[in-house]
Amino acid sequence: MKTFARSKNQFRVIIENISPVINNGEYAIKTICSQPVNFEADILCDGHDVLRAEICIKKTGARKVNIVQLTHKDNDRWQAETSLNEEGNFVYFIRSWVDWPLTWLNGIRKKIADNQSVTSELLEGATYLQDSLNFAPKKGHKRIKELINLFQVIDNHKEAISVLRTEELDVLFKDYPTRHLATSSQEFPWKIERKKALFSTWYEFFPRSSSTKKEHGTFKDCEKLLPRVAAMGFDTLYFPPVHPIGEVNRKGKNNATKAESNDVGSPWGIGSEKGGHISLHPDLGTEKDFLSLINKAKKLGIEIAMDFALQAAPDHPWVKKHPQWFKWRPDGTVQYAENPPKKYQDILPIYFETEDWKNLWDELLKTALYWVESFGIKVFRVDNPHTKPFEFWGWLIQNVQKKYPDVLFLSEAFTRPKIMEQLAKQGFTQSYTYFTWRNNKHELTTYLNELTKTNLKYYFRPNFWPNTPDINPFHLQYGNESLHLQRYALAATMSSNIGVYGPVFEQMVNAGVAGKEEYKDSEKYEVRHWDWHKENKITEVITLINKARNTSEALQQTNNIEFLEIDNDQLIAFYKWNFDNTDKKLIVVSLDPHYSQKGWVKVPLHKWGIHEGHPIVVNDMLTGNSYHWDREWSYIELHPVLPFHIFDVSL
Amino acid sequence: MKTFARSKNQFRVIIENISPVINNGEYAIKTICSQPVNFEADILCDGHDVLRAEICIKKTGARKVNIVQLTHKDNDRWQAETSLNEEGNFVYFIRSWVDWPLTWLNGIRKKIADNQSVTSELLEGATYLQDSLNFAPKKGHKRIKELINLFQVIDNHKEAISVLRTEELDVLFKDYPTRHLATSSQEFPWKIERKKALFSTWYEFFPRSSSTKKEHGTFKDCEKLLPRVAAMGFDTLYFPPVHPIGEVNRKGKNNATKAESNDVGSPWGIGSEKGGHISLHPDLGTEKDFLSLINKAKKLGIEIAMDFALQAAPDHPWVKKHPQWFKWRPDGTVQYAENPPKKYQDILPIYFETEDWKNLWDELLKTALYWVESFGIKVFRVDNPHTKPFEFWGWLIQNVQKKYPDVLFLSEAFTRPKIMEQLAKQGFTQSYTYFTWRNNKHELTTYLNELTKTNLKYYFRPNFWPNTPDINPFHLQYGNESLHLQRYALAATMSSNIGVYGPVFEQMVNAGVAGKEEYKDSEKYEVRHWDWHKENKITEVITLINKARNTSEALQQTNNIEFLEIDNDQLIAFYKWNFDNTDKKLIVVSLDPHYSQKGWVKVPLHKWGIHEGHPIVVNDMLTGNSYHWDREWSYIELHPVLPFHIFDVSL
Repeated sequence: MKTFARSKNQFRVIIENISPVINNGEYAIKTICSQPVNFEADILCDGHDVLRAEICIKKTGARKVNIVQLTHKDNDRWQAETSLNEEGNFVYFIRSWVDWPLTWLNGIRKKIADNQSVTSELLEGATYLQDSLNFAPKKGHKRIKELINLFQVIDNHKEAISVLRTEELDVLFKDYPTRHLATSSQEFPWKIERKKALFSTWYEFFPRSSSTKKEHGTFKDCEKLLPRVAAMGFDTLYFPPVHPIGEVNRKGKNNATKAESNDVGSPWGIGSEKGGHISLHPDLGTEKDFLSLINKAKKLGIEIAMDFALQAAPDHPWVKKHPQWFKWRPDGTVQYAENPPKKYQDILPIYFETEDWKNLWDELLKTALYWVESFGIKVFRVDNPHTKPFEFWGWLIQNVQKKYPDVLFLSEAFTRPKIMEQLAKQGFTQSYTYFTWRNNKHELTTYLNELTKTNLKYYFRPNFWPNTPDINPFHLQYGNESLHLQRYALAATMSSNIGVYGPVFEQMVNAGVAGKEEYKDSEKYEVRHWDWHKENKITEVITLINKARNTSEALQQTNNIEFLEIDNDQLIAFYKWNFDNTDKKLIVVSLDPHYSQKGWVKVPLHKWGIHEGHPIVVNDMLTGNSYHWDREWSYIELHPVLPFHIFDVSL
Repeated sequence: MKTFARSKNQFRVIIENISPVINNGEYAIKTICSQPVNFEADILCDGHDVLRAEICIKKTGARKVNIVQLTHKDNDRWQAETSLNEEGNFVYFIRSWVDWPLTWLNGIRKKIADNQSVTSELLEGATYLQDSLNFAPKKGHKRIKELINLFQVIDNHKEAISVLRTEELDVLFKDYPTRHLATSSQEFPWKIERKKALFSTWYEFFPRSSSTKKEHGTFKDCEKLLPRVAAMGFDTLYFPPVHPIGEVNRKGKNNATKAESNDVGSPWGIGSEKGGHISLHPDLGTEKDFLSLINKAKKLGIEIAMDFALQAAPDHPWVKKHPQWFKWRPDGTVQYAENPPKKYQDILPIYFETEDWKNLWDELLKTALYWVESFGIKVFRVDNPHTKPFEFWGWLIQNVQKKYPDVLFLSEAFTRPKIMEQLAKQGFTQSYTYFTWRNNKHELTTYLNELTKTNLKYYFRPNFWPNTPDINPFHLQYGNESLHLQRYALAATMSSNIGVYGPVFEQMVNAGVAGKEEYKDSEKYEVRHWDWHKENKITEVITLINKARNTSEALQQTNNIEFLEIDNDQLIAFYKWNFDNTDKKLIVVSLDPHYSQKGWVKVPLHKWGIHEGHPIVVNDMLTGNSYHWDREWSYIELHPVLPFHIFDVSL
């Protein structure tokens, strides 16, 4: 229980129930530059005195404090919205105090209006003016001293009263507050990251499938595909692990327990005699090749994202060098991954409960830093983070970002909600989501509102993927072209961070394993050969959607979304807007891949501050078609051929 | 921001979102003995291992820890309900760990079912059994060693497997957990108070109006009224301040600015040449008289509650002795209470911003302790606590209760909700409420649900008063006898803490000041003379209701309340139950003081675990009439003559 520390007890103001706060300030809220945050707090004081309150923001380690006034909303709740324009780690706290001068000003005016004598009150005012000399800048002192004279000398009181009829003292006392006996809340962390934390468009392919010939692809082959990826509007190219692949217990095609001699194995079965997590697979090329690829990509505006998959094949160098980082069974064998009765003998989990955990953590941190420092990698997609301790991730991310604040981490955890949320709290920049399985209007609306209208919006940045090499969702296995367009359009307009496992999606090579959301002939276990020159409706529409995203600030953020009423459950409609509300997009997507759907959407005229009858123009960003609307309910008809509108709205 | 302390980082379990918690543990949750609390927390771990969790409770300063297992509810939320049977200050925390033996047990059983070889697993089991020797009591060691032998010796493995088919190891590992690498949450305070904190029935009158003759009443006169108060079933008798009343600027009858020479003044204008907060008004009697009254009351089961009103008349001894505890104006006069343009010149507020605040606080604490230590006073009704700093109350209550944990404080703050809630957080035992102005069904239902279904239920104990000397609510000013019965019945059945400003209520002397909720000829400013022998319908019904309260545990608590559907807005119905659910009361109150009202109430058969058709008996605790019900919807008809039922329910 709190012990009442008498030294601080004279402070009359109580500040509580501050928002946003994650786990009482244990974890940071996250934004990018210019992204506004709405701060609120309950601020209370005994009696009827005038309170003032402000939010104070400072960069970790810095002295300068940014101050933003809070205003009273209702029921003792105070509020201010603000943003910052600098990346880094900040803290904020709330400060409030009983404002003696303003309380006095309030009282004396009421007494004057009631024709009471205010001689003593005017003298009291002089003392507040005297005090304000300690806070107001020098250039104002002359006038303050004049005022003091007016208030102190009874003969001048008539003039003093006429000053009280102006705003002069209000401005003075508000601009230069004394903050006597101010209460300050604890400090809460706020991390401001680079823009890509909030807006990114990912493309995934397997480097070993990059060859246009029937060969094992190489980094050089990947280089040749970069212009295509860039032209389609992607800014992040994510590769499954590029390290040597284990040979002991290697998996064969279609996840066969035994590999044939020519099987290439799963890239996630990392490590062999050829090296481990800081080596490159010899068949992909040399370090020089990889560096060249990374640099060529950068020139095209593409960052290479690496996979950070903390597990080892049985022949990974760590197993010999650091056997204590693995669990050894009483029979002398090493513990492979299992989820009884299932066995995954090609993979050894790392034993985080080892007594040598400090060295283990250091090595894993070094591993991440190696790719940052030697190759300029700034984006990691982390494989299965939910099978390693949460606190490890908090520590690792904090320590990478301490040196390289611009390094981003995407959490690949498809698991229970609170586990996914906890990883985001620990510091993951972005997170895979349940979007992959949210199909109908109710599911999508509920999920988006949960992500954008609850505390999640302050720390969990969703990244929407219609598919991944691990998830071949049933609806895509059986889905036609229109469904593919629909799923990409939904992901790309609802979430500012998105990604797609490219070749499979574009070419609809979605044949599944019966009853499972897995791919037949999955690229995870073999080299596949794609027609890398193919252009079709899907690639064309993806390119146009990405172009819309790259030119619209409203689509470059996720939280500013409001769903719109539309009288057809096969149509979903919403609007989005950018931080300063200068860019507005209205999106309608048909959820029916087979038939035309029509309906009436309720245009949010009221929110936009206009009345019915006032004409607005909506311009379809894909087709270029413009529509003139002047009613609150507007007609929409969508055909499977192009099952969505992304309207730019001009008021 | 959190710095990841590596020494603790190996702990894999995260515990968060614990409930109930008040301001992150700054303030205590409050119960009485046997009152159960439902504890919950989100408990998370990486991977798929078996988790265990428990709530640990210990008395402040003690070593012994009470442990209650938490069970998994859903979505990573864990839960346990528990209560304590000892008064005092406790702390609770939650502890959780990955249970290695249970994880192993889980895995090996799946492997056995899958016909896998488990030789190594059995050897592993032996190590967990070996470890359990460190936790299990000596008398079990022989059997554990036998088991170790079974698991270690390959020839015994068949028998070991047959042991695994029993519950023996589950029981062993569950009863004697290792708690390796357990995560513990922070500690949260829990205050367990005496029963009266939750169940009390207050009666208020002015001691100076206690005479049955036309005289200024005395403590001796009060003594004569005790049997009547006891017979009516009250257990707490609250007196407005009994101290000397200021003579400077004394208020006259009906709040007149100037008193006549024979005016007695307001008891809240405390202090004169005759003494201050530790003196008694000479006209009431001596210290000996007061002590005699307190002791006689105690014998009748009644505690005397004193008023703790921290303000001073201008002639209070403090003003001369401690002028620094008051605010002095530039014109040399002392600051009286004001709310511009209104002036209250008979009252000086205490200046809590004084630099001498430490001595001031000490004096106020001494004042409270004086009445506790010299007169055995254990109940204070605190006047206007919301005009003194919150932290002062936290400190004062904590320091009084450190020496006298059984002292109770009722907060008389009729102000904004968060202010009232903050006072309760700081430690007030009970609080006046908005019940006085909640009249219709919607208002009452909403308010009760707010008090009993939100976090408030853990720290804010309502005390329902139909009236007070300060509040003569409009509905009572114009209300008939039935309305008075209705208001008392509502208060007394909804809230376990209640009070009534007695004589005025019983005799319906509710004439008001036009347009105000004040009394004409208010007792606050003059001696009134009541017929203290009068018995009427109202006193009779109050007596019967109080009797029902005193015999029913369900009515001796507030939070266990559920409203029932009833198809008439003039009828309100709810049921209540005691902590162990052995006492059930079903209450129906008519809100119409003029006409009969009838309707069908939905009896909560489902909650009581019985089916429609099963007969139940409800017995009206006032009339003694019994009704046999066997349908889910039962007929109710109430007449203004007795506008409520308090049914005892027998299933």
